[in-house]
Amino acid sequence: MVKALYAGSFDPVTFGHVDIIQRAAEIFDQVVVAVSINTHKKAAFTPEQRATFIQQALGPKSAVQVIVSEELTVNLAHRLGASVLIRGIRGSADLDSEMAIAGLNSGLAPKIQTVFLPTAGQFRDLSSSMIKEIAKFHGDVTKFVPETVAKALAAKY
Amino acid sequence: MVKALYAGSFDPVTFGHVDIIQRAAEIFDQVVVAVSINTHKKAAFTPEQRATFIQQALGPKSAVQVIVSEELTVNLAHRLGASVLIRGIRGSADLDSEMAIAGLNSGLAPKIQTVFLPTAGQFRDLSSSMIKEIAKFHGDVTKFVPETVAKALAAKY
Amino acid sequence: MVKALYAGSFDPVTFGHVDIIQRAAEIFDQVVVAVSINTHKKAAFTPEQRATFIQQALGPKSAVQVIVSEELTVNLAHRLGASVLIRGIRGSADLDSEMAIAGLNSGLAPKIQTVFLPTAGQFRDLSSSMIKEIAKFHGDVTKFVPETVAKALAAKY
Amino acid sequence: MVKALYAGSFDPVTFGHVDIIQRAAEIFDQVVVAVSINTHKKAAFTPEQRATFIQQALGPKSAVQVIVSEELTVNLAHRLGASVLIRGIRGSADLDSEMAIAGLNSGLAPKIQTVFLPTAGQFRDLSSSMIKEIAKFHGDVTKFVPETVAKALAAKY
Amino acid sequence: MVKALYAGSFDPVTFGHVDIIQRAAEIFDQVVVAVSINTHKKAAFTPEQRATFIQQALGPKSAVQVIVSEELTVNLAHRLGASVLIRGIRGSADLDSEMAIAGLNSGLAPKIQTVFLPTAGQFRDLSSSMIKEIAKFHGDVTKFVPETVAKALAAKY
Amino acid sequence: MVKALYAGSFDPVTFGHVDIIQRAAEIFDQVVVAVSINTHKKAAFTPEQRATFIQQALGPKSAVQVIVSEELTVNLAHRLGASVLIRGIRGSADLDSEMAIAGLNSGLAPKIQTVFLPTAGQFRDLSSSMIKEIAKFHGDVTKFVPETVAKALAAKY
Repeated sequence: MVKALYAGSFDPVTFGHVDIIQRAAEIFDQVVVAVSINTHKKAAFTPEQRATFIQQALGPKSAVQVIVSEELTVNLAHRLGASVLIRGIRGSADLDSEMAIAGLNSGLAPKIQTVFLPTAGQFRDLSSSMIKEIAKFHGDVTKFVPETVAKALAAKY
Repeated sequence: MVKALYAGSFDPVTFGHVDIIQRAAEIFDQVVVAVSINTHKKAAFTPEQRATFIQQALGPKSAVQVIVSEELTVNLAHRLGASVLIRGIRGSADLDSEMAIAGLNSGLAPKIQTVFLPTAGQFRDLSSSMIKEIAKFHGDVTKFVPETVAKALAAKY
Repeated sequence: MVKALYAGSFDPVTFGHVDIIQRAAEIFDQVVVAVSINTHKKAAFTPEQRATFIQQALGPKSAVQVIVSEELTVNLAHRLGASVLIRGIRGSADLDSEMAIAGLNSGLAPKIQTVFLPTAGQFRDLSSSMIKEIAKFHGDVTKFVPETVAKALAAKY
Repeated sequence: MVKALYAGSFDPVTFGHVDIIQRAAEIFDQVVVAVSINTHKKAAFTPEQRATFIQQALGPKSAVQVIVSEELTVNLAHRLGASVLIRGIRGSADLDSEMAIAGLNSGLAPKIQTVFLPTAGQFRDLSSSMIKEIAKFHGDVTKFVPETVAKALAAKY
Repeated sequence: MVKALYAGSFDPVTFGHVDIIQRAAEIFDQVVVAVSINTHKKAAFTPEQRATFIQQALGPKSAVQVIVSEELTVNLAHRLGASVLIRGIRGSADLDSEMAIAGLNSGLAPKIQTVFLPTAGQFRDLSSSMIKEIAKFHGDVTKFVPETVAKALAAKY
Repeated sequence: MVKALYAGSFDPVTFGHVDIIQRAAEIFDQVVVAVSINTHKKAAFTPEQRATFIQQALGPKSAVQVIVSEELTVNLAHRLGASVLIRGIRGSADLDSEMAIAGLNSGLAPKIQTVFLPTAGQFRDLSSSMIKEIAKFHGDVTKFVPETVAKALAAKY
């Protein structure tokens, strides 16, 4: 039985993240999504709000567990019994920093593997930061994020 | 008749930006340069100063219109009747984020096309942020920006 | 009036190429597609076949002109009166060589501008060489190329 | 139960490939390595030799199955009941073409997922083609490939 | 006699930096390491602490000189009589901005050459910012930085 | 005394190569340029012709030595007493393969350092293969290569 951990800031979750979660759920026996409390980025939503957005996007029948975490990712993985870390990759701009994070995590916890899932073509342009930027200028983000997130962004800005 | 919009923060304009504007003016019937009011970057100059620098760099005979905008780029394009968005590309480091912005803008406004113009070899190393960094350390930036900008940077730092 | 030239080997044309051609046709007054006779790649189809595939994909009502050429691209542009060269960009892997070609062409013909059009998200994975590879293994390429091309590939391999 | 397929030319297998195979074997219930019969690259070793090198590198106790295939990868995956395709990623130079292959395979077989495994730091510089190049000049490749491969390369060149 | 200058923020120094310094010392007659006082990044350690960490990592027998500087790098080089600027390169993500900095410095001081040293495979994933991030979450960074730095990070966070 | 080796196919030498050689000559005590006999690329000129082109481009007063070699680069460096390998870097597209070559060479000869020199902005678009392509179509390459090379290319195609 392989448990996979998908940690990130998800501020807020996009259709790209949802796609990665659903595909991870087809590959691995158990998937845990951990909303990280960022240390240096000022978040638009609280970790609890971000976790709720993900749960709503996945729907009540999803077996994926969504938690909030302020632990180092590899420590959290150890505690949860997760042996795989999942990262979505949108393109080569993501790759170098993700390779570095994977390398550092491998140094910290050699038994834990990082797995990259390629983002599907239609979601490759999505990023939480760009979507917040669009929402700040009152652009319509309903093509890019789940409905509850779009409403929350509209309410916020 | 094709109107093209070149939006950016231009804080401050460099010879690279001027080159892109002048080449755009040869390709398109009308070119509008829009100085965006950045939401998250602390700017060195006011949007009005930045627009004035661009106008001075282009000279009084230029048919290019320079405006200040706080609208979402695609909304501004709609309002102006511009069907083309122009972006300068200096190298692969620019490309992924520019592809993403183009993709998001295409999702927001399918009729508006993004066009990338390759920055000429001699200007590919220029960026507003690097030039401000040099100016902060009292380096000579006259090779990189128009004269009035160089003076304004020297006065500021 | 701006005439734009889109030169390539198109061996064979994909939906990605067709998308670039159609978008170029919305931006520029006239568009010419030139099928280049490759010097070092062994082509799957003759230049005339490749040009016919493009014409069929565009349909009889298209104003785009499709020709076969064995001239240097900038010389062809001069002869045709085209002041813009169009290149499709799928991602950063394309960018460096395209920047170099644009730079060399600018050295050869300073008055001719290169314009990059970003390939739409759903077509960014398509390349003629990969599609020929799939066809060689009898994979179904109907999602990637026009119907007549898919049939020609099936007949060939 | 998840079966994963790792297809490639492996001409010849390097320590980087071996590392990817062993890590895949820790993540997935079953792993099949398929040596592809390349269509356009002239191989140094026959597919059977290449498969034997991999089996010898993994050792007699390995549960990983090594086969030779001339099928399209997604067709082979279907026939084997594999729902995951594995690809090793050494850096951003690999990424764009791998994203494109993953996207095309997803178009051909939407149920099959591609998973990228990051190559460990010490193996990121290894490539079969570079190692053959070194061997041609009688360089010592024992740090880069299993012993039997090093001997076979020395015998060949 | 060639004097080389390696300027950076080194906040804090990693084994990757130490490797670059030691290799530079084998190539050039004299090497000066200059800890820059960053203008826009909030540093974890004072410039003096950062310089001390480097000196301790190099050991008392090292001929490398470590200084603190708030000058523009090319001006410092002129004052020191250094004709070479050294930069470590970890991968393509570093390259474009480093090429731009090298180009700007060449514009400012045409006689001074920039030299890139490739970071060794085992250090390519290390960055000061990632290591601080790990330390903030109380991860073990002793594999990535010299012992005194690891202690200082543990004391700080 | 540091001797540096710059090995390549130089088929033919471009102004970019000449720039790298001249800058290397300012940094290192001795510079040797080695024209490699390519194993898999069909060359346009013989190694002796290519070496002569380089010597003519450097002029009779240059202290740089130009040789022809069919040895593995690190073996040649050992034999010549060169402790530094020089590579020109035009952009991120060059970087990953150059990092890999540097890593492999470091594995083969740990005492020999690879040094990357950034190609100057005005030469970053030049490549021998592109220039041969232009010459095949009778384009004017005098802006890109030394005069004798331009004549030789014109005579050849």
